[in-house]
Amino acid sequence: MTAIDLNSDIGEGFGRWNLGDDEAVLGIVSSANIACGFHAGDPRVMARTCRIAVDNDVAIGAHVAYRDLAGFGRRAMDVASEDLVPEIIYQIGALSALAGAAGGRVSYVKPHGALYNTIAVDERQARDVVAAIREADDSLVLLGLAGSVVLRIAEEAGLTTASEAFADRAYHADGTLVSRREPDAVLHDPAEVAERMARLVAAGELISVEGTPVRLRADSICVHGDSAGAVEMARAVRDRLLTDDISVRPFVGR
Amino acid sequence: MTAIDLNSDIGEGFGRWNLGDDEAVLGIVSSANIACGFHAGDPRVMARTCRIAVDNDVAIGAHVAYRDLAGFGRRAMDVASEDLVPEIIYQIGALSALAGAAGGRVSYVKPHGALYNTIAVDERQARDVVAAIREADDSLVLLGLAGSVVLRIAEEAGLTTASEAFADRAYHADGTLVSRREPDAVLHDPAEVAERMARLVAAGELISVEGTPVRLRADSICVHGDSAGAVEMARAVRDRLLTDDISVRPFVGR
Amino acid sequence: MTAIDLNSDIGEGFGRWNLGDDEAVLGIVSSANIACGFHAGDPRVMARTCRIAVDNDVAIGAHVAYRDLAGFGRRAMDVASEDLVPEIIYQIGALSALAGAAGGRVSYVKPHGALYNTIAVDERQARDVVAAIREADDSLVLLGLAGSVVLRIAEEAGLTTASEAFADRAYHADGTLVSRREPDAVLHDPAEVAERMARLVAAGELISVEGTPVRLRADSICVHGDSAGAVEMARAVRDRLLTDDISVRPFVGR
Amino acid sequence: MTAIDLNSDIGEGFGRWNLGDDEAVLGIVSSANIACGFHAGDPRVMARTCRIAVDNDVAIGAHVAYRDLAGFGRRAMDVASEDLVPEIIYQIGALSALAGAAGGRVSYVKPHGALYNTIAVDERQARDVVAAIREADDSLVLLGLAGSVVLRIAEEAGLTTASEAFADRAYHADGTLVSRREPDAVLHDPAEVAERMARLVAAGELISVEGTPVRLRADSICVHGDSAGAVEMARAVRDRLLTDDISVRPFVGR
Repeated sequence: MTAIDLNSDIGEGFGRWNLGDDEAVLGIVSSANIACGFHAGDPRVMARTCRIAVDNDVAIGAHVAYRDLAGFGRRAMDVASEDLVPEIIYQIGALSALAGAAGGRVSYVKPHGALYNTIAVDERQARDVVAAIREADDSLVLLGLAGSVVLRIAEEAGLTTASEAFADRAYHADGTLVSRREPDAVLHDPAEVAERMARLVAAGELISVEGTPVRLRADSICVHGDSAGAVEMARAVRDRLLTDDISVRPFVGR
Repeated sequence: MTAIDLNSDIGEGFGRWNLGDDEAVLGIVSSANIACGFHAGDPRVMARTCRIAVDNDVAIGAHVAYRDLAGFGRRAMDVASEDLVPEIIYQIGALSALAGAAGGRVSYVKPHGALYNTIAVDERQARDVVAAIREADDSLVLLGLAGSVVLRIAEEAGLTTASEAFADRAYHADGTLVSRREPDAVLHDPAEVAERMARLVAAGELISVEGTPVRLRADSICVHGDSAGAVEMARAVRDRLLTDDISVRPFVGR
Repeated sequence: MTAIDLNSDIGEGFGRWNLGDDEAVLGIVSSANIACGFHAGDPRVMARTCRIAVDNDVAIGAHVAYRDLAGFGRRAMDVASEDLVPEIIYQIGALSALAGAAGGRVSYVKPHGALYNTIAVDERQARDVVAAIREADDSLVLLGLAGSVVLRIAEEAGLTTASEAFADRAYHADGTLVSRREPDAVLHDPAEVAERMARLVAAGELISVEGTPVRLRADSICVHGDSAGAVEMARAVRDRLLTDDISVRPFVGR
Repeated sequence: MTAIDLNSDIGEGFGRWNLGDDEAVLGIVSSANIACGFHAGDPRVMARTCRIAVDNDVAIGAHVAYRDLAGFGRRAMDVASEDLVPEIIYQIGALSALAGAAGGRVSYVKPHGALYNTIAVDERQARDVVAAIREADDSLVLLGLAGSVVLRIAEEAGLTTASEAFADRAYHADGTLVSRREPDAVLHDPAEVAERMARLVAAGELISVEGTPVRLRADSICVHGDSAGAVEMARAVRDRLLTDDISVRPFVGR
């Protein structure tokens, strides 16, 4: 039977502030990118999120980020290697301990926000992230953007990698994402999105904005949970996959 | 041959700011209480400190603290259990990953500052710290104040504990520390301090401020490294112990 | 015509995180306690909140707090005077500049959370807050709990003070609040709350949980806006007051 | 009589951490760039620094920075205008209140670190800083790099500006700084530096690394105080200027 992973950003509250409906999302996805305290997430939130993930048999990933609570990790920062490498290790270790206390373990790493975007193209920071993962635990899988610099470097360094597609994003014919500055960059219709993802898993392709099919490697599909509409769309994707006899399960351990 | 451990707070810089001469201290002590980012220490400082500790065969301890960089963890805070427990686990995990990357491991936990003082007397927070250590790794040793509430609770819970004496502090005849508000609370003469510590290790006792001997359990002696004078005193204690054929080595693993 | 002030905590988002419906609340109340970045509120949120307050002719108060984003300023902290005094001045100054840029000004100070509770009873911290307000701008009004230590000290020091009643809280016959640990501490029925507040303004009294009337000095009524139900209750109070020909306007400048 | 201003970064401690000898530097310079809490400086440090500045008749400048304590404001950050503008206003306001409480006032603004470097060339962030100063108080002077984008934009916007030269830095014949990556970028001999600065004030020129004179507009000379050697150099510059009958006084208010 065909299978695919669904991943989502989780545990992005902090202190008094909540974000998204983590419990709902953890009932839908198979992999949880859990914030590690640098862009969001405090230890209480992390501990709670790990417990729910374990209860739902959801794989735990370290959603590592720049140290930027005020900017939610979304601002490009010129962080030196001597800071960035240990910051990634620190976050992985902190989440690992909390995952362990919850009866689980961290099985993959997904960089967040501006770090995610930077290491898709920037060699130096990409090497830092890969070095950090190897130093922390070289059995961790790196989840990232298909075709990105960081995935190539990680593979060259011997790490296992996984590629993700974005459920609600439009793609160009060359496999790159349509920029969010373009009007058609983000898809809003749950049924359409679910249909696209079912096709992606079954046939390995999507229809690009140019109208032609584009082949994509996707070990995982990224869905969102930070609004009621997002949760509804995630559920639509999952339901459609199950209807098509595609099972939803973690990319790690398969 | 008799042996004792010397411990010191290490890695208490943050970003642009340094504190103390870590390299000098790591050539003197056998156990390093390494700040974990909550009262001091950032990942770069932690990584560097772990590397030097490993190079010097110094045992690594997690110097866990309240989340209070501005107050250096020295301000009493009424932190709820649901925050405090995961905060301790988070810090242990973060340091563990960096210690592992440096080729070492965390072998003990020493609470810092206001948390140290609070759990010496406060049952609830003491139980939280013990629960956190057990959830993180129940083979970790808890290093704390002889006779404190937290050591009793830790022992009842099955944790291994270690007691420390303070090299430069005066003691009452009942084994309690002379309050820092008293004029004679802190000793300043390295030779006198070294002499006291040699006697403590050899005979298990000190002379109290009341003039009578006081018996103390000490698995470790705490020395400071945050000033040139402090480093000189630490070295005087070590030299005196070695002169008396007392070896200096970690309390863990003995 | 009789008049009363309605105040509410506002601008308590931070970075990516929102809290409450500030625009709705700023259409209801006459005084806004705006977070100053220590327990919540970042400069962007503060600037935006000041602009909406100015547009709605709502008085701006500095909602000063302990430096504790992770705890939302709700955790008791033993902050030394040499820190607390300048921390309060810093927050007042930061908000003043943003209020000025929005065409308004800070006209009062309301301490938040654990600081509010502490200075209701603790002389030292109460004196620190009063000293800070005087050093920052002695024309600022201090808004606080009726009968609290800090209001007495402020008045002795020559500051103008204002007392507040809590719309949704039960009171004892002696004028003290029923502890939140008691089952009947918080009122949930908007109509009942509105009725109580109308009586308080008209007659200067409430019915206590003991069933007897209790006289309260209230220059302002505190309402909440951090949930849909809270906004509904705030609007119910306002509507009832207007129905009774009680105008809602700031306590400052009257 | 000829006069020049000497400015230095001051008040860059935080919590437990000190940096430089602020009291020594405040006895040498005429303008103090005081950290505002975003890259360094906490309210206690700021209050203390303002008091010493006032006691020494030293002009107070707001040393505004990116929100980056861990990176000391030295890391380029892509901060959106809607954040950057209020962040600058926030910092100016906070320092203004503390300066006022100390009997002084903020008279100028000098951006720090990565922000300083960015707005020397980046139009968008330069416009944000200028807008922030105008919204906070358009009588504030902007102190910056001669020939920088931000000084041009500030002048076009009607702000008063001041240009600074760096005492210990080598210049190219075109008036630009020699990059720190070059071996001769930084000068270390106090006597040579003092001689260069005396010539700059008297004749408006320096000798460039190419060996030719370069004309520079300098309303102020930036000296450092973050090491014993730096303080010695700052004093050498001041002493040499006084020997040449050049008085040292603030650029503001002249």
